[in-house]
Amino acid sequence: MSAPFVNRHIGPDDAQVETMLDRLGHASLDALMDAAVPKSIRSTDPLGLPAGVDEETAAAELRALAGTNVPGESMIGLGYHATVTPAVIRRNVLEDPSWYTAYTPYQPEISQGRLEALINFQTMVADLAGLHTAGSSLLDEGTAAAEAVALAHRANRKAAGPFVIDADALPQTIDVVATRCEGLGIEILVADLTDGLPEGPVSGVLIQYPGASGRVADIKPVIDAVHEHGGLAVVAADLLALTLLEAPGALGADVVVGSAQRFGVPLFYGGPHAGFMAVREGLERQLPGRLVGVSVDAEGHLAYRLALQTREQHIRRDKATSNICTAQVLLAVTAGMYAVYHGPDGLRAIAGDIHGLARRAAASLAAAGVEVVNETFFDTLNVRVPGRAEAVVAAAREASIHLRLVDADTVGVSFGETARETTLAAVLGAFGVTEVSAEGDAGLPEDLERTTEFLTHPVFNTHHNETSMLRYLARLSNRDYALDRGMIPLGSCTMKLNATTEMEPISLAGFANLHPFVPAADADGYRQLIDQLEGWLAEVTGYDRVSIQPNAGAQGEYAGMLAIRNYHRANGQGQRDVCLIPSSAHGTNPASAVMAGMKVVVVKANDDGTVDLADLRAKCEQHSETLAAIMVTYPSTHGVYEETITELCDLVHEHGGQVYIDGANFNALLGYAAPGKFGGDVSHLNLHKTFCIPHGGGGPGVGPVAVRAHLAPYLPTHPLHPDADRREGTGAISAAPFGSAGILPISWAYIRMMGGEGLTRATAVAVLSANYVAARLGEHFPVLYRGESGLVAHECILDLRPITAATGVSVDDVAKRLIDYGFHAPTMSFPVAGTLMVEPTESEDLAELDRFCDAMIAIKGEIDRVAAGEWAVDASPLHHAPHTARTLVGEWDRSYSREVAVFPAGISPDKYWPPVARIDQAYGDRNLVCACPPLDAYAE
Amino acid sequence: MSAPFVNRHIGPDDAQVETMLDRLGHASLDALMDAAVPKSIRSTDPLGLPAGVDEETAAAELRALAGTNVPGESMIGLGYHATVTPAVIRRNVLEDPSWYTAYTPYQPEISQGRLEALINFQTMVADLAGLHTAGSSLLDEGTAAAEAVALAHRANRKAAGPFVIDADALPQTIDVVATRCEGLGIEILVADLTDGLPEGPVSGVLIQYPGASGRVADIKPVIDAVHEHGGLAVVAADLLALTLLEAPGALGADVVVGSAQRFGVPLFYGGPHAGFMAVREGLERQLPGRLVGVSVDAEGHLAYRLALQTREQHIRRDKATSNICTAQVLLAVTAGMYAVYHGPDGLRAIAGDIHGLARRAAASLAAAGVEVVNETFFDTLNVRVPGRAEAVVAAAREASIHLRLVDADTVGVSFGETARETTLAAVLGAFGVTEVSAEGDAGLPEDLERTTEFLTHPVFNTHHNETSMLRYLARLSNRDYALDRGMIPLGSCTMKLNATTEMEPISLAGFANLHPFVPAADADGYRQLIDQLEGWLAEVTGYDRVSIQPNAGAQGEYAGMLAIRNYHRANGQGQRDVCLIPSSAHGTNPASAVMAGMKVVVVKANDDGTVDLADLRAKCEQHSETLAAIMVTYPSTHGVYEETITELCDLVHEHGGQVYIDGANFNALLGYAAPGKFGGDVSHLNLHKTFCIPHGGGGPGVGPVAVRAHLAPYLPTHPLHPDADRREGTGAISAAPFGSAGILPISWAYIRMMGGEGLTRATAVAVLSANYVAARLGEHFPVLYRGESGLVAHECILDLRPITAATGVSVDDVAKRLIDYGFHAPTMSFPVAGTLMVEPTESEDLAELDRFCDAMIAIKGEIDRVAAGEWAVDASPLHHAPHTARTLVGEWDRSYSREVAVFPAGISPDKYWPPVARIDQAYGDRNLVCACPPLDAYAE
Repeated sequence: MSAPFVNRHIGPDDAQVETMLDRLGHASLDALMDAAVPKSIRSTDPLGLPAGVDEETAAAELRALAGTNVPGESMIGLGYHATVTPAVIRRNVLEDPSWYTAYTPYQPEISQGRLEALINFQTMVADLAGLHTAGSSLLDEGTAAAEAVALAHRANRKAAGPFVIDADALPQTIDVVATRCEGLGIEILVADLTDGLPEGPVSGVLIQYPGASGRVADIKPVIDAVHEHGGLAVVAADLLALTLLEAPGALGADVVVGSAQRFGVPLFYGGPHAGFMAVREGLERQLPGRLVGVSVDAEGHLAYRLALQTREQHIRRDKATSNICTAQVLLAVTAGMYAVYHGPDGLRAIAGDIHGLARRAAASLAAAGVEVVNETFFDTLNVRVPGRAEAVVAAAREASIHLRLVDADTVGVSFGETARETTLAAVLGAFGVTEVSAEGDAGLPEDLERTTEFLTHPVFNTHHNETSMLRYLARLSNRDYALDRGMIPLGSCTMKLNATTEMEPISLAGFANLHPFVPAADADGYRQLIDQLEGWLAEVTGYDRVSIQPNAGAQGEYAGMLAIRNYHRANGQGQRDVCLIPSSAHGTNPASAVMAGMKVVVVKANDDGTVDLADLRAKCEQHSETLAAIMVTYPSTHGVYEETITELCDLVHEHGGQVYIDGANFNALLGYAAPGKFGGDVSHLNLHKTFCIPHGGGGPGVGPVAVRAHLAPYLPTHPLHPDADRREGTGAISAAPFGSAGILPISWAYIRMMGGEGLTRATAVAVLSANYVAARLGEHFPVLYRGESGLVAHECILDLRPITAATGVSVDDVAKRLIDYGFHAPTMSFPVAGTLMVEPTESEDLAELDRFCDAMIAIKGEIDRVAAGEWAVDASPLHHAPHTARTLVGEWDRSYSREVAVFPAGISPDKYWPPVARIDQAYGDRNLVCACPPLDAYAE
Repeated sequence: MSAPFVNRHIGPDDAQVETMLDRLGHASLDALMDAAVPKSIRSTDPLGLPAGVDEETAAAELRALAGTNVPGESMIGLGYHATVTPAVIRRNVLEDPSWYTAYTPYQPEISQGRLEALINFQTMVADLAGLHTAGSSLLDEGTAAAEAVALAHRANRKAAGPFVIDADALPQTIDVVATRCEGLGIEILVADLTDGLPEGPVSGVLIQYPGASGRVADIKPVIDAVHEHGGLAVVAADLLALTLLEAPGALGADVVVGSAQRFGVPLFYGGPHAGFMAVREGLERQLPGRLVGVSVDAEGHLAYRLALQTREQHIRRDKATSNICTAQVLLAVTAGMYAVYHGPDGLRAIAGDIHGLARRAAASLAAAGVEVVNETFFDTLNVRVPGRAEAVVAAAREASIHLRLVDADTVGVSFGETARETTLAAVLGAFGVTEVSAEGDAGLPEDLERTTEFLTHPVFNTHHNETSMLRYLARLSNRDYALDRGMIPLGSCTMKLNATTEMEPISLAGFANLHPFVPAADADGYRQLIDQLEGWLAEVTGYDRVSIQPNAGAQGEYAGMLAIRNYHRANGQGQRDVCLIPSSAHGTNPASAVMAGMKVVVVKANDDGTVDLADLRAKCEQHSETLAAIMVTYPSTHGVYEETITELCDLVHEHGGQVYIDGANFNALLGYAAPGKFGGDVSHLNLHKTFCIPHGGGGPGVGPVAVRAHLAPYLPTHPLHPDADRREGTGAISAAPFGSAGILPISWAYIRMMGGEGLTRATAVAVLSANYVAARLGEHFPVLYRGESGLVAHECILDLRPITAATGVSVDDVAKRLIDYGFHAPTMSFPVAGTLMVEPTESEDLAELDRFCDAMIAIKGEIDRVAAGEWAVDASPLHHAPHTARTLVGEWDRSYSREVAVFPAGISPDKYWPPVARIDQAYGDRNLVCACPPLDAYAE
């Protein structure tokens, strides 16, 4: 049998671990962890998980689980549609580590490929929506709608009256919006818009276009009406329908949201998919989430980077536009590439084929005397079969087709890209209709037919053969730095191995092609997998119940805070709305607390970075009657196991508050301490950190929420949950009952292959590696915080402030210079401005750790030359980093050689060349362009 | 529905086709083809193939076919063993276009990644074999053995007596060797070697180690004995067994052959796998096939390239060491990486686990009173169950285990890497044994236990965690240029799209994990696929029968020539042994003819490149009584549709000869002319050219042979063929009955998706593109040959000889300079020295064709500057090409700028950087090193 998986996952082998322990002066991993982890929280029992299995066994088990799901032909609709992922995109994006192991493009110079892919996505969405600016994906259609309502409310606080929600909106969208608005204190009114807006003042409207029923109404009168009220009009639209239907922007919509799932993204039993939002001119700065914009680099050439980052939580904290942090980059790239590959004509043809089948279905049903409820439609028909709906759905299921059971008398039929002539006949057969009409009347109102152009940019009109598409994808990924090139030592982001055996199963048809609303019996493999995974996560965190519905870490925080709030309310303590948050917390914490209707009170930190217990005590006492919770990250964002955590928890509990322990740093605890045991009432985890879901260039993520028993009744629910008793309660916080179900096999496989012992060892090696880096680099850069033992946890903060003060060399300079050395920078200026936070993870072996330390030490040597006056800082390679090949062939009047510029670590044939020089962030924000630039913009 | 596959496969869209036709002055593709293809051969009937289907349909059909195969647990042995392809290698090599679309590394400067991977393979084989030098893969174990016997014979012509073949050799090996020796006139004797060599003189011996029966004998006495006779000892060995068993080289073997299949290469129903050969010092120059060696580049740095190419057929033609041209590069890379990932300890552990199961099986059987025939063993037991063998095999099959039915009384059990505890119990259960022994005696004779070290090079002791392995694979593929970067305009090699939908199915378990000798009923999916594919190939070639057994083009030639020879013999015309071959033929033609026992007579060419019919007539008359055949390529290797082809065929037929039409250039005929209809008796096809099997960096290939009905009885047979009537006759020419069955789904999918109409259009666009290139470039470089219409076929030859004569700029200079422009060079100096042959294929769109033409024209501009005396040729960028980044950072005293050096086509962030400068070929051949160089060799 080949090496156990734990030896494949953990980088350092036994001999390397020995070397590193020697350097630190600890006799064993156990001894190291004894010294590092406070005794008060240290658990010594082995994890109650099954022993790890080999890769082939795990793969076989996942194939078996996938095999018990029954995807069939998905015709349920409701925002999830059968689609064909072009094979060239599946293999070279979804299944390609150069795309899926990439990090969020915070270092834009080494992320130009995926930034271009995202600007394609933005252009595609904005074009189809008919609006000015689109962002780079939201989590799903439901949350995008909720974000849009919040945006409309924020942008337009003067408008009075409730926010009206289309009764024909997707049921899960209504639920997600309602949950969110309740937290934010926005009044909503669900109303039938067939005859226009309800009477009275309204502050805005959300219209589904086409409706969940399939109906295609003229939305312009409603939009005009809401504008007359001074409100904003949000339209939740189907992108594919928009290739045939007039753009909502052209009809006056202010905001358009939706899901790009049917643009080639597998159904995945509900997610992950790319939600989207586009806004009219003037609302750009209100957009939540990622936005890619065009700027210029130090050489004056066009370059992409994230725009308007000042809107985000890490800057604006409780005043951010949203708590959203993770996007759905990998899926947005996929959807954008689908549009690139098909082009406008191809998309119109796909939509036309789908509409054609729907037309013929409608005609066939009508000819057989079966009533189609909606006269207008794009792809979806609601069919009236009094008393027979269940029987029709069952007959279709016999033919491997999933239809929607609307009610006892109504069946929904929604055609997707995979439907063929045979599908049409089978669907009609389920209704007892045997005559298939060769034609049918158009379902789209003539005056709503699309007249405006879209996807006219060359990128959507060039790569329509597979050879060209393949090369375009390769060209973009070759511009980027991902884990396939080297270490990404991002503090707090745990960029560990995403093993192939974990990744392969998500392509299995049984996982990829399942609609989220199929009957429970047809999703049995998923249910087993989810039950096991939730159980395992409860075991390792020490909590009683877990929900994997939240599809990003910030969503997990939000779900956790909702649980706390609802718990207090149920206990008659509705006045408890103060959330204490230490000053060092990640910006999503305050943003999420606010979304759950809480007020944020900041707790001070001591000079050593720990929570100031005296201040905490004072705040607790001050807010004793209204204290809802504290949100604390453990180990802290300073990378330290604080000794006072149990005291902190006790204090908050004494004052009637609940303790939220942010699990972002759980990779430092797993197997050694369980937040559910040492004082937490609720935590979220980031499966895309500790549990190996790849970052995908900035998403997908999964943020399960874990709670103690008393909070379990307040976990997220979902109106279409397969378990009837999980349909009502807290409400839905994601559009799908199980969030990003499609990528859960990744974390399942990781836990299954590592077993309790392997997971525990991974934690210890992660801590060992961080301390090894701290030990090597501490001689050159001060390590800002350490625990009482002198050890850090799983990451360490290098303080550059004295260096910057003395030499003018900034954190940015060091980060960009690392690119020349062949590295991705650590986290910059979080949680402390002017510092670098390094998290090596357990997956990097000693050779790579040393290569990184060597690079940092060499950079320190360069800084010393600046300090010594040998180089002016502005003339140093640090200031000019990163160096492009373009620079190299130009005039050279630098105070250092070309070799020092691009090969500071020695000449190598394997050098990574940054495609652009340092990017001017401010220029791009001043001159905001967030769509594909015209080709002549690239001209020299 | 999305765009039809034909539009994805063919690069130029309708508008581009129009543009190109305009340039050529033809009104339509039909008109162009009417002008280009001689009327005498032009077929106008549509191909009798089913209409093309979309990608999803083809994929679904292939999944269904794979699903009807029953892989189970393969324990049949006989050279094919269950193995685990590490997922990181599967995804990042076998499923990665940067590896599988690469071309043969004839341009070593842009192939350093796969050359390093191959030198790993060579080192692994040589180390395990205990010999000095190993080549970079042969087609399979059977042909490797046949090549070894030929080598031994060639190297040692003085030795008298038959060549002795171990009766315990694999049955297919014996058959392949016998077939080959019959052609070459080498006498063989199959003998039981248990008690040593047979009496009398022997010229050499082939020993199986361990034997097919599982027996592990001490082979040293036999080796010593054959050496006393002055003969050479060839050992066919199991690489995995050699981790525990002493190396044959250490025991005196001169040559070691075998298959590297069980090093992570899927069973693939028999192939493709990497066969291997290693030789002792002194025999290197006798090695057939590819050999990678170390040399230096123009900057004095270490670089890899193909060594000793003068051994090969394109140089030595009928005197070459072998006809082998294609290797099994992709599979050799896989096997080498398997060793890199596991390392020596990991391999020993895998072998130990397998041996442990075999030991326990032997002990359990013995304890139950069941006789194990072989007392010694590594992984295989022959078990005696008088009269019950069929029942035992059937019982095992019920438990999804395939055992070997040796004879009515004997069952073979062979453990592989996938066997587990449960497998052992199930196997024993099939024998009726329920007690499983916890231990068992060692099966390996103590004095044969391995004492010599292997895989001590760092590359085999570094990348044992997945992160490191992934990066190593990425680093190597990033060094290389493959179709994912741009066009590879290789004349005669048809580097067209290898579509993802064609590639994905080969990973399906039903295709990948099937043993070649399972019962026919368990391979039904393959049989259907093969029957259909053979039928479709017969239809498009106009022949009556096709065999897909030959696993490379040269094997197809050889099979075809054997059919001709056997046909003549059957007709009492055994004296017919002269094969006419035009001087322009590819070198494999004469080499294959010789292997089939023929004498080669060369036919002259006219100045216009056509066959000199007068000379042909003279030769026919001269050899009328002994004329066996003519081998002719059509369109000729000059890229021209010769008008005289039908006349040529008639002439040969008149003199009693058979006409062999080499199908290397079939991409110019498909749908427009069928060799079986215009005069051919037999042809081979290259599925890795016309039918989309990727080149894999130099293999795998598939070379089906197609014949008219009178030759059908002489197609290859196989001793273990599932059809009893295909077991005896001509003999086997590949180790597996269906050759490289595992990659046939690729060609099947291509034909299925294109349909007859699509295939025909592809041909026309390929011809259009070649003529477009000829038209654009003809103004700058003379096009050497054109047909009577003034048109070329699917490729064109650019004559550089006048340029070279006038300026000193060589073909090499242009080829290497193209690298700076971001291109792979066309074919160099074939079929005419001093020329470049360009074949654009139908898959390159107009943008890429123009980019290539622009680069060639720009290079011509550079040549003009040399001609004008502006640059001395030795000081020109042509001479210094390709330019590395290393060059760029050094001193610069060139007569051109750095920008001209590396960005001659304009500055681009997407530049491909060659990792080495121009390689000194002669240096490497003078200083032959064909194993991984020590790390300090790389030191600056």
